[in-house]
Amino acid sequence: MPKKHSKEDLKKLRHSAAHLLAHAVLELFPKTKLTIGPATEEGFFYDFLPEKQFKEEDLANIETKMREIAELDLPIIQKEIPKEEARKLYKGNLFKLELIEEIPEDTVGISTQGEFYDLCKGDHVKSTGQIKHFKLLNLSGSYWRADKTKPALQRISGTAFFTTEDLEEYEQLKEEAAKYDHRKLGQQLDLFSFHEEGPGFVFFHPKGKTIITLLTRYLKKLLDGAGYKDISTPIMLLDKLWHQSGHWEHYKKNMYFCEKEDKHYAIRPMNCPGAILIYKNRPHSYRELPLRLSEFGLVHRYELSGVLHGLFRLRAFTIDDAHIFCTIDQIEKEVITTIKIIHTVMNKFGFSPISVTLGTKPDKAMGSTDIWEKATHALQNALDKTGIIYEINEGDGAFYGPKIDFCVEDSMKREWQCSTIQLDFLMPERFDLTYIAPSGEKERTVMVHRAVYGSLERFMGILLEHYKGNLPFWLSPIQARILTITDTQKKYGQEIVDALKQIDIRVDMDESSDPISGKIKVAQEERIPWMLVIGKKEEANKTITIRHRDGAQETGISVEQLVKQAVEENQ
Amino acid sequence: MPKKHSKEDLKKLRHSAAHLLAHAVLELFPKTKLTIGPATEEGFFYDFLPEKQFKEEDLANIETKMREIAELDLPIIQKEIPKEEARKLYKGNLFKLELIEEIPEDTVGISTQGEFYDLCKGDHVKSTGQIKHFKLLNLSGSYWRADKTKPALQRISGTAFFTTEDLEEYEQLKEEAAKYDHRKLGQQLDLFSFHEEGPGFVFFHPKGKTIITLLTRYLKKLLDGAGYKDISTPIMLLDKLWHQSGHWEHYKKNMYFCEKEDKHYAIRPMNCPGAILIYKNRPHSYRELPLRLSEFGLVHRYELSGVLHGLFRLRAFTIDDAHIFCTIDQIEKEVITTIKIIHTVMNKFGFSPISVTLGTKPDKAMGSTDIWEKATHALQNALDKTGIIYEINEGDGAFYGPKIDFCVEDSMKREWQCSTIQLDFLMPERFDLTYIAPSGEKERTVMVHRAVYGSLERFMGILLEHYKGNLPFWLSPIQARILTITDTQKKYGQEIVDALKQIDIRVDMDESSDPISGKIKVAQEERIPWMLVIGKKEEANKTITIRHRDGAQETGISVEQLVKQAVEENQ
Repeated sequence: MPKKHSKEDLKKLRHSAAHLLAHAVLELFPKTKLTIGPATEEGFFYDFLPEKQFKEEDLANIETKMREIAELDLPIIQKEIPKEEARKLYKGNLFKLELIEEIPEDTVGISTQGEFYDLCKGDHVKSTGQIKHFKLLNLSGSYWRADKTKPALQRISGTAFFTTEDLEEYEQLKEEAAKYDHRKLGQQLDLFSFHEEGPGFVFFHPKGKTIITLLTRYLKKLLDGAGYKDISTPIMLLDKLWHQSGHWEHYKKNMYFCEKEDKHYAIRPMNCPGAILIYKNRPHSYRELPLRLSEFGLVHRYELSGVLHGLFRLRAFTIDDAHIFCTIDQIEKEVITTIKIIHTVMNKFGFSPISVTLGTKPDKAMGSTDIWEKATHALQNALDKTGIIYEINEGDGAFYGPKIDFCVEDSMKREWQCSTIQLDFLMPERFDLTYIAPSGEKERTVMVHRAVYGSLERFMGILLEHYKGNLPFWLSPIQARILTITDTQKKYGQEIVDALKQIDIRVDMDESSDPISGKIKVAQEERIPWMLVIGKKEEANKTITIRHRDGAQETGISVEQLVKQAVEENQ
Repeated sequence: MPKKHSKEDLKKLRHSAAHLLAHAVLELFPKTKLTIGPATEEGFFYDFLPEKQFKEEDLANIETKMREIAELDLPIIQKEIPKEEARKLYKGNLFKLELIEEIPEDTVGISTQGEFYDLCKGDHVKSTGQIKHFKLLNLSGSYWRADKTKPALQRISGTAFFTTEDLEEYEQLKEEAAKYDHRKLGQQLDLFSFHEEGPGFVFFHPKGKTIITLLTRYLKKLLDGAGYKDISTPIMLLDKLWHQSGHWEHYKKNMYFCEKEDKHYAIRPMNCPGAILIYKNRPHSYRELPLRLSEFGLVHRYELSGVLHGLFRLRAFTIDDAHIFCTIDQIEKEVITTIKIIHTVMNKFGFSPISVTLGTKPDKAMGSTDIWEKATHALQNALDKTGIIYEINEGDGAFYGPKIDFCVEDSMKREWQCSTIQLDFLMPERFDLTYIAPSGEKERTVMVHRAVYGSLERFMGILLEHYKGNLPFWLSPIQARILTITDTQKKYGQEIVDALKQIDIRVDMDESSDPISGKIKVAQEERIPWMLVIGKKEEANKTITIRHRDGAQETGISVEQLVKQAVEENQ
């Protein structure tokens, strides 16, 4: 389905909707202080300091007022005014005054529509009448600058689209997403739990652990074929290493520290330093490169408790990390292979489309222009050779090198950034990583960081929602269950269990004496892909009836056929 | 080879040898202060506070003096003397005075031989003449009570046997063990390394990580078949949990702690609390028991840097832990199954014999006599039913329940305690673990802790030494290497690589242009089990010559045969 409007268009619309919201609020509650109101991935919000706290029921009135203003079709006019004038306009609004002071120019932008004005860089639709298909969604608390030591504000969130259909689809998908919230599924399917003794840390129950194990096994096999070598390194290292790597400087707030007998440790927030120490353990010849060291490494990153969100945002998770140590000339080929692996994996899960962006040299970049050009060129060449479509995000690279980010769209049309490929010139400098070139001279090694799933735990959460709990056959913790109509079929049932276990299918038998309808209900609730029903007839004919999760049935299947089908589906 | 003397006899001999050592030292250096001198697993030692530091070269003189005293065949006489008298004897020796104060009785034991006497509970050979086959081995530093805040001492270690043959065999094995020290092998075979940034933490290189993965895979498959369910839980939990579990109280000195935003965490030294939280996550019916939750869990245990020893003693390692939650009536069956699993695993590695001890109720035990009797009985019954021979170690159980320990003997006749089965009544009380009995009443759950390998890292170290670096085919990081005589055979070589990779054999090809002898040398050094040599003849006949590590050759093997043989060997 081609989109009529670009992402940029949608952003403009939503940003304008945020102004419309602020306009309506000021008309209804004139003493409200405005702060900021950006467009977001899914809509827009505005943070207010109200005179009197807003209530949930105010949203309907505000939305009605928004529609009234929209209908007036006020032109939206952007202009530049001197800072001095802006300061007068916002006398008494410390938030806006603070924003004005941060603008380096002598003038500031102001967007106006009717009586309403707002400090703004611009980029809106032409008039309020163009904002037609919108909805307010939520009232929540926030802080000025997201800093809880600063004033508490109230956030009103909403969304806007160009057509009613788009808005309705959004609302429907939103409803579905709530229904298939992975936190709910996790509990229903007995996959994982959280406990106050481990805030932000997940406890995987047997079935959840099975999914993680299967995801790991699938990817490791793929990486093994692609010449990766698995390593494991300590999850805690002396803090001097983290000073050297720069994590201390840039990431300290999110790190956990530990002290023991005069030694200071940091629990790793990233896996790179461990791989680097292994690389540095002995000299390397150019013949050994590229050296692809992968580590499914557990990392700990402190997050405020307010942002924790099931498997999507944890304080400890496992990254399917890899660090490719190579020469600058090998970048292109390595990147192409990695892009292919990412596509293979994402296609396996039915994620489509995959949108790709190339982030180039930011203002504050490290390394020479020459190296940046060569590296960016290598990434671009690699992308071009794979033939995939990508956008260039100027200046969006990391300060240590350019990067490629991959976003997948799930079955509910939500986008998830999982995979990433990042070139790194900084770490090789900081740790003096070298290889012996054919000339016999030491040369600087290039490091490529890359992850496919990103966080395994988060990826599992995404999959649970994407599949709405119905994981594919190969990824289901229990793949098949024998349901006998009466107890007399249990012996035959056991034969089938044995036959399937032989080929490593995760199968069990419902040992209860419940009626078949009860057994089916339980298996259905557990989202077991194959319910293998056997009654008198099946026993006599040595066949099986396969009942699928969607209710479809296949009858008269021989054990041989079943085994064959299971092997195929298990790929 | 039946042993003529029991372990107890050997202990007596070695303890007497320690007295002989102290006797000799006092004759040579009369102002030396004696402390303690026990028998150990491999010999004996005595810790001295010398007037002037002993030197390595003193050992020969001391040993000569020991032989002189031995030849005098002085009778060794044990007697009891009043404490008051002992205090006079040891006036000026604060160590012995401290020991005397700790003896609860009014009298203390003294062992004498000639002019020499030592504070001692007894249990010696009859006379010094019986100590014939001994040797001093080592001079090292130690601390009084192994506490580095207390006086520094000097330790002289040695060993003693009943026959020259035994002593010679010991020396020979000792020499071999040094030759096959796993730390050396780890470096030679590029398996792992240590770095000052992670003191006591191992860094697994690709080949070492492969071994750990294979060990894990092998055991997990076995456990899967035995109805175990794998889980994973956080490696760091709030410290209140560790207070509740009792680890804080008993184990604090060995634990790493972490503080973040007012919350206090302990990094787990054991995996049990995580499994307990999962068990407690919902109520359990008796129908669900036994519930066997396994976790290959990374633990951190602080150790003094002096005792760190390669993979044998790390500060972070992975336990192949499992916790079986069951009823008291299920203990016996669970223990039998576990004993079988332990034997299956240890036999797989060729460890034999396996000696088994049952540790019974210690003086300071928790739980009622009734429960202890029932549990000990269950363990004993289980042991009896398996038909294995075991010793009872009265009072050697843990304070929370009786246990079975398993010791294996390696190829160099050294004993290693790896596997253990422990009943636990304490944790179920502390965490109020229950199940719903058929009566509908809540009953107390019993917990069985058990490990097969113990620490995976340590077990890998033991295996490296046991196999003297020549890991069996299935456990070798690289199982086969193609060695072509000239480059023209490389295409055929690749066919063989592909055929073996198809069946998941870890195979590579020597891509160098070295002569075949050079290629063999390298593969031999890497301890690759199969060197697959192909020259003109092999290429023409489509055969392979297998050269084994021990130099044995099989010629004219077809690719088909090779594949078949590889599948068999890979079990």
